[in-house]
Amino acid sequence: MPQSPRQLAAMADAIRVLAMDAVQVANSGHPGMPMGMADVATVLYSRFLKFDPAAPRWPDRDRFVLSAGHGSMLLYALLHLTGYAAPTIEDIRNFRQLHSPCAGHPENTELEGVECTTGPLGQGFAMAVGMALAERHLNARFGDALVDHRTWVIAGDGCLMEGINHEAAGLAGHLGLGRLIVLWDDNRITIDGATSLSTSEDIAARYRAYGWHVETCDGHDAQDIARAIAAARDDDRPSLIACRTVIGKGAPNKQGSHAVHGSALGAAEVAAARAELGWSAPPFEIPADILADWRALGAPGAAAHLAWQDRLADHPQRAAFAVAMAGHLPALAGAVRDFRAGLGENPGKVATRKASEMVLEVLTAAIPEMLGGSADLTGSNNTRTKATGPLSPPAYDGRYVHYGIREFGMAAAMNGMALHGGVVPYGGTFLVFSDYCRNAIRMAAIQQARVIHVMTHDSIGLGEDGPTHQPIEHLASLRAMPGLLVFRPADIIETAECWALALGETNRPSVLALSRQNLPTLRHDDEMKSARGAYRLRAAAAPRRVVLIATGSEVEIALAVAAALDAGGIGAEVVSMPCAELFCEQEAAWRADLLPTDVLKVSIEAGATFGWERFTGSDGLNFGIDRFGASAPAEQLYDYFGLTAAAIVPQIKARLGIS
Amino acid sequence: MPQSPRQLAAMADAIRVLAMDAVQVANSGHPGMPMGMADVATVLYSRFLKFDPAAPRWPDRDRFVLSAGHGSMLLYALLHLTGYAAPTIEDIRNFRQLHSPCAGHPENTELEGVECTTGPLGQGFAMAVGMALAERHLNARFGDALVDHRTWVIAGDGCLMEGINHEAAGLAGHLGLGRLIVLWDDNRITIDGATSLSTSEDIAARYRAYGWHVETCDGHDAQDIARAIAAARDDDRPSLIACRTVIGKGAPNKQGSHAVHGSALGAAEVAAARAELGWSAPPFEIPADILADWRALGAPGAAAHLAWQDRLADHPQRAAFAVAMAGHLPALAGAVRDFRAGLGENPGKVATRKASEMVLEVLTAAIPEMLGGSADLTGSNNTRTKATGPLSPPAYDGRYVHYGIREFGMAAAMNGMALHGGVVPYGGTFLVFSDYCRNAIRMAAIQQARVIHVMTHDSIGLGEDGPTHQPIEHLASLRAMPGLLVFRPADIIETAECWALALGETNRPSVLALSRQNLPTLRHDDEMKSARGAYRLRAAAAPRRVVLIATGSEVEIALAVAAALDAGGIGAEVVSMPCAELFCEQEAAWRADLLPTDVLKVSIEAGATFGWERFTGSDGLNFGIDRFGASAPAEQLYDYFGLTAAAIVPQIKARLGIS
Repeated sequence: MPQSPRQLAAMADAIRVLAMDAVQVANSGHPGMPMGMADVATVLYSRFLKFDPAAPRWPDRDRFVLSAGHGSMLLYALLHLTGYAAPTIEDIRNFRQLHSPCAGHPENTELEGVECTTGPLGQGFAMAVGMALAERHLNARFGDALVDHRTWVIAGDGCLMEGINHEAAGLAGHLGLGRLIVLWDDNRITIDGATSLSTSEDIAARYRAYGWHVETCDGHDAQDIARAIAAARDDDRPSLIACRTVIGKGAPNKQGSHAVHGSALGAAEVAAARAELGWSAPPFEIPADILADWRALGAPGAAAHLAWQDRLADHPQRAAFAVAMAGHLPALAGAVRDFRAGLGENPGKVATRKASEMVLEVLTAAIPEMLGGSADLTGSNNTRTKATGPLSPPAYDGRYVHYGIREFGMAAAMNGMALHGGVVPYGGTFLVFSDYCRNAIRMAAIQQARVIHVMTHDSIGLGEDGPTHQPIEHLASLRAMPGLLVFRPADIIETAECWALALGETNRPSVLALSRQNLPTLRHDDEMKSARGAYRLRAAAAPRRVVLIATGSEVEIALAVAAALDAGGIGAEVVSMPCAELFCEQEAAWRADLLPTDVLKVSIEAGATFGWERFTGSDGLNFGIDRFGASAPAEQLYDYFGLTAAAIVPQIKARLGIS
Repeated sequence: MPQSPRQLAAMADAIRVLAMDAVQVANSGHPGMPMGMADVATVLYSRFLKFDPAAPRWPDRDRFVLSAGHGSMLLYALLHLTGYAAPTIEDIRNFRQLHSPCAGHPENTELEGVECTTGPLGQGFAMAVGMALAERHLNARFGDALVDHRTWVIAGDGCLMEGINHEAAGLAGHLGLGRLIVLWDDNRITIDGATSLSTSEDIAARYRAYGWHVETCDGHDAQDIARAIAAARDDDRPSLIACRTVIGKGAPNKQGSHAVHGSALGAAEVAAARAELGWSAPPFEIPADILADWRALGAPGAAAHLAWQDRLADHPQRAAFAVAMAGHLPALAGAVRDFRAGLGENPGKVATRKASEMVLEVLTAAIPEMLGGSADLTGSNNTRTKATGPLSPPAYDGRYVHYGIREFGMAAAMNGMALHGGVVPYGGTFLVFSDYCRNAIRMAAIQQARVIHVMTHDSIGLGEDGPTHQPIEHLASLRAMPGLLVFRPADIIETAECWALALGETNRPSVLALSRQNLPTLRHDDEMKSARGAYRLRAAAAPRRVVLIATGSEVEIALAVAAALDAGGIGAEVVSMPCAELFCEQEAAWRADLLPTDVLKVSIEAGATFGWERFTGSDGLNFGIDRFGASAPAEQLYDYFGLTAAAIVPQIKARLGIS
């Protein structure tokens, strides 16, 4: 090890002091983890991690994920000490203050050195699995010269207690992701107190059961830490290293207890820690020799980066690699055109999940970055195509992941894949199971990651599986989420458009809500009408009195309603709204033209009516389902829940005062 | 074993034939699991399960949970064959048809013999953990004479792959729930194909790591099944029995493959299976001798039930037991009155999470059925009281569960506890982590279970932890869910009222969204105003032009806005709306009086504005947050996001055309 044990200890203490001082000034934050894991992090950064502080986006850098995101000061300290342009010491001084990039939990949109946003426990770990998977896939595609890096994680007891760690670790074990190394902060403390209050498991044995390699080390002994990490690095299985640590190490009166987990130490204990550590420098000043030791750590990575650039310059796949990493999908527009052209005039009745598969056949053939999968519903989600063979070791060049029955793990892994770059992940489950992975969808939105969720069986139209499988509130609840696009196409044409839009959104995740049941083709033009989120699908024949707004499988019903009204002399337009979010982003005049104030506005959607007043006003009519579904064939359910033209037309007439 | 191997085989075949015939007639459903697990279920029911078909609600019955709910025909067959009043053979003939109690997945609201609704994988298992926990707790309270039963689960590979099984099994292992026995349908098949497509773990080793006892058996050998179950029964740890089975056993050409998992076998294969099994009876007719063997199985349970009734009749705790099992909480009203009386005139500024703790102190002292807990946020959720000591083996009489960092597992366990009866569970986490347990909240609503979620830190008011921890869309997304009450009290008075209302709702789950930050007491009367969901908190001084609607911590802001408007001659009322769902259930005239059409209606809530147009119309004003939050002190965030009287008043004036 180039640094002496004394140097390493001082370097680790720099982390400790920065963490406790920043939390103390903010009077808010979590000093315990950074102080406890300072030694482990110092060994990792000084000896193992491949990073170049001058090039935080270098594609072949190692990825470091702080899954225990509450210990954010550990990461901020590391980035600052090793010489990243940000955070500055001023940023750290403003820890947890408005506009400081040093937010309470690390945010990838705030700092380039933060690979992903963490805080919701277990998800950093699961995103790291996605990163490690993307790395192996890109390695298979581009070779060792361009892609050859590791993924490192620091995880706490909470990360390993959350259910998602089971899914993520099982997937990583199955896929043999040997370049994934998880450093577990084994401090035996959680917020409530000792871990023994709530858990008795043998975590090492559990990880071995997943096919992982497990090491144990003294998390305050640099030599032992280095030994364990080297052993993990040299094993071809994913590795868990149990780092036995003392939470809050260095705070003499509070260390080892949950008192040090989530609040400032207090001035007295900060002073006591300074004395204990022999640290005389004032807050936010790092002694020059210690800072120099930290700053020296970037040199090997900088050299590796230069060598990598040289290899890239001469590499035959240089252009393809650049395209993949840029993520702009130059083949997208052409592929969508090809699909439309190949479709002919009358594609017939087809479920939008099947339409999605037809589109995916063309898209995945044209766009090698697309990497699909499903949480064990491949045949139902229609997510597998000819171009996407199974990704299974050693065939990491496959482009289809059998994620297993792991919705949350899948969604979080896809976040990690998108953030890693070079791949565009999409994955399928039933819409109702968006509940299982909901916070990972939210995390995609927070992180501005292009992840596409193919969520089929999007209403009572799934039929006999009944209420536990029938989404009701899911469309509304996803639309309420900031930064997410919820697409619900009405036919094969809109399905193709929605796929094109979702793929074109480089900074936003999307949900495609797709029908199980067959739907007719409603449009035959080539204009990309879904781009504005909603459009007039059908004009009124008689003078306009009603505008019907519908999505997905209910657009067909709206058309039937409009036809019946028009036949009775009541002019009715139909607006198809495949994406409410995109519609809300249009200018007011355009929106007002589509949804004018002088007509009765009626929404039809086989889900909760909650939220539809935004478009219909509170004096409109909202047809939907505000209770749980039922088990029966789909057509009977539509009838039972009154979602038919026969049931709706009289209610509209009644509202208009027409008998 | 009283039945011979030949008899048992024929009895199991009755399940197989009923399952394949019902699925065939419905042309929808899952024959594979019922046919594969028929032998195991037959042994369980014939030899181990304590049940009385004439008394499905007998409190001391064993609980049987079909966690792999897609195999619903297994359960329907068992209930019918053993002689429960329902389902009838006609019900089974109408499997998966509208109004048949034999829904696609088992629904506890449809059939008394269905202990819980299952289908979303892993949750039946986790509910069973809650049932087993309730059993031990009630046993500690009432003794062996009244409470002495087991909880049995059939789980599939999917249940054991979902993250929630990790949380549930870890909790069960930690709590030493030795009366929980999980029969794992180890058929090595999932929907996508062989389990080896997506998993490589050693499940038995993983369960041992949780502290479970693990057995293995040939799932088609009655003798071996009985041996394994007996060993599990006699072990004092929770047990997993890996039952090696052939999925679809009996369908000669399809068994053992995923083709038999989720669709009808087809007429030809049904005929082939009949031949294979030597089953000549027509569909839905059970040969009399086989039916007689099945019907005989209830006799030991009926006798045990009678003996239990005798013990109950003489038991000193008979009355208390009846009160607990009825769940009516006779002490509730008095406890709420006591709390109100003890509060005095001015309780001062107090966070509603703290107010909740104050209410809970009184409630838990008065209501012994209340059983609390938190997912490792005890000090933040303020869920522990003096009356609720830790529940930890062997002290099962404790009333506070340290659930660990297991939100989903906690929520599902609480569902199981509520469904078991005798306890009223409540548990805490941060509101943002409702995402982690969302489908279990939904399952509480579907199952009409009284489960109370204490969800604190309910807005940007949590401050520095930042966007990953700040709920934005959560209130809206929970309000969109049918059958759930979302309470967001504004002060300590409303907090007490909301607790009373939540506890009084015997058939609905509730979420209490509570503030981290201190809030003033806004009301001093004794009227239970929250009962109608909303009420006029402040009348207008000047002629009314504006009605402000707010919830929780923003009611204080609405009052300041109203005061400023009134001072300027613009009459402004304030409506506090602690529960939108209860408000929507009031008669139209009452609602219209509170929210009239001839005024500007303005909503103020520190969350997504989505859904608020329901109350303000689309021509009202909606103040909220439609982006992710930020990391900073709470007060600064309210200012930054424009949720202050100073920011809101001018916008209302502008809308009214007043400069």
